Amino acid sequence: MIKLYDYLPSGNGYKIRLLLTRLAIPFERIELDFDAGETRSAEFLARNPTGRIPLVELEDGTYLSESGAILYYFAQNTAFLPDDPLTRAQVLQWIFFEQYEHEPNIAVARYWLLHGPIDDEKRRALAEKQTRGLAVLAQMDQHLSDRQWFVSEACSIADIALYAYTHVAAEGGFELAPFGHVNAWLARMAGQPRHIPITEG
Amino acid sequence: MIKLYDYLPSGNGYKIRLLLTRLAIPFERIELDFDAGETRSAEFLARNPTGRIPLVELEDGTYLSESGAILYYFAQNTAFLPDDPLTRAQVLQWIFFEQYEHEPNIAVARYWLLHGPIDDEKRRALAEKQTRGLAVLAQMDQHLSDRQWFVSEACSIADIALYAYTHVAAEGGFELAPFGHVNAWLARMAGQPRHIPITEG
Repeated sequence: MIKLYDYLPSGNGYKIRLLLTRLAIPFERIELDFDAGETRSAEFLARNPTGRIPLVELEDGTYLSESGAILYYFAQNTAFLPDDPLTRAQVLQWIFFEQYEHEPNIAVARYWLLHGPIDDEKRRALAEKQTRGLAVLAQMDQHLSDRQWFVSEACSIADIALYAYTHVAAEGGFELAPFGHVNAWLARMAGQPRHIPITEG
Repeated sequence: MIKLYDYLPSGNGYKIRLLLTRLAIPFERIELDFDAGETRSAEFLARNPTGRIPLVELEDGTYLSESGAILYYFAQNTAFLPDDPLTRAQVLQWIFFEQYEHEPNIAVARYWLLHGPIDDEKRRALAEKQTRGLAVLAQMDQHLSDRQWFVSEACSIADIALYAYTHVAAEGGFELAPFGHVNAWLARMAGQPRHIPITEG
């Protein structure tokens, strides 16, 4: 069975849990306590030198890291990754956007606020992440103003990647109320078949 | 003809220039002066709301952003992106690694040093980027210790993505001499057919 090295509060881990569950692919979840340094142990670094979860161990023992690459791997030949070459690139565009623009601001702000303490230097960095994170949410809202899903006509791994930290953005200090299209899309995501919450392992 | 909105010193732009040139795909390069704010103009933001280059305009007028997604788009059905589903995911794993671990440390340190001035707060952030960037280079060196290319047996878009800012890492204050496998791989990249330097538009 596929093994998922994971950390329950992580949105990056949740992306994989959510996709595998929606695809009805069974997996064994191995929880690592990030705060206790379990992702920095010699044993885990031998599996993934970046020391990051999620990490997937396939049935033949191959390891695959980076949430975007793992989403892509399992979505191939499913409705979560359309076949058309341009559409696939557009799906990846939004996943790269998530990792470069969204996660470093919204997810990191959430992590800091959930874990504290916040010193003066971190407070300044947090203010910058608030500004950038709000710009990201505004871009998402604008994009969703005339469509149901980020790419094409169905829920793809672009939606799953962006959902993970957007739906808990309030925990990073982001007020979602002004972003009506984002809120409607969050509700659509939560209403999909076999949806699970981030708290479910 | 394909249009590439670009900024010559950018490694992210260079990735696309290098792939298109190696594939012998003609393109028109449109240089934007990042330092003069040309990527923040209303005209450019209408094309790409993130205000980032590279941005590609396809012949039908479709825009594609995010260097990793653009690389993927053009590499499909070429030797730069093998067909096997796991191999493709591994190629993407390294491109996500580049955007999340490598570029925010090595490319940003290079940008700061090339553009100055460096105040005390930036100096502290720079020291952290040096530490993280050196760890990234060490991971690359370890991975290359028993292989010629990052994935599989041939140069892929993973190599192109990682080459762009690694070969100019010295401009970010990173000493490459200790990383022998990385240096050998940089030389292999520069010796490939139709290779171009970052300074060539």
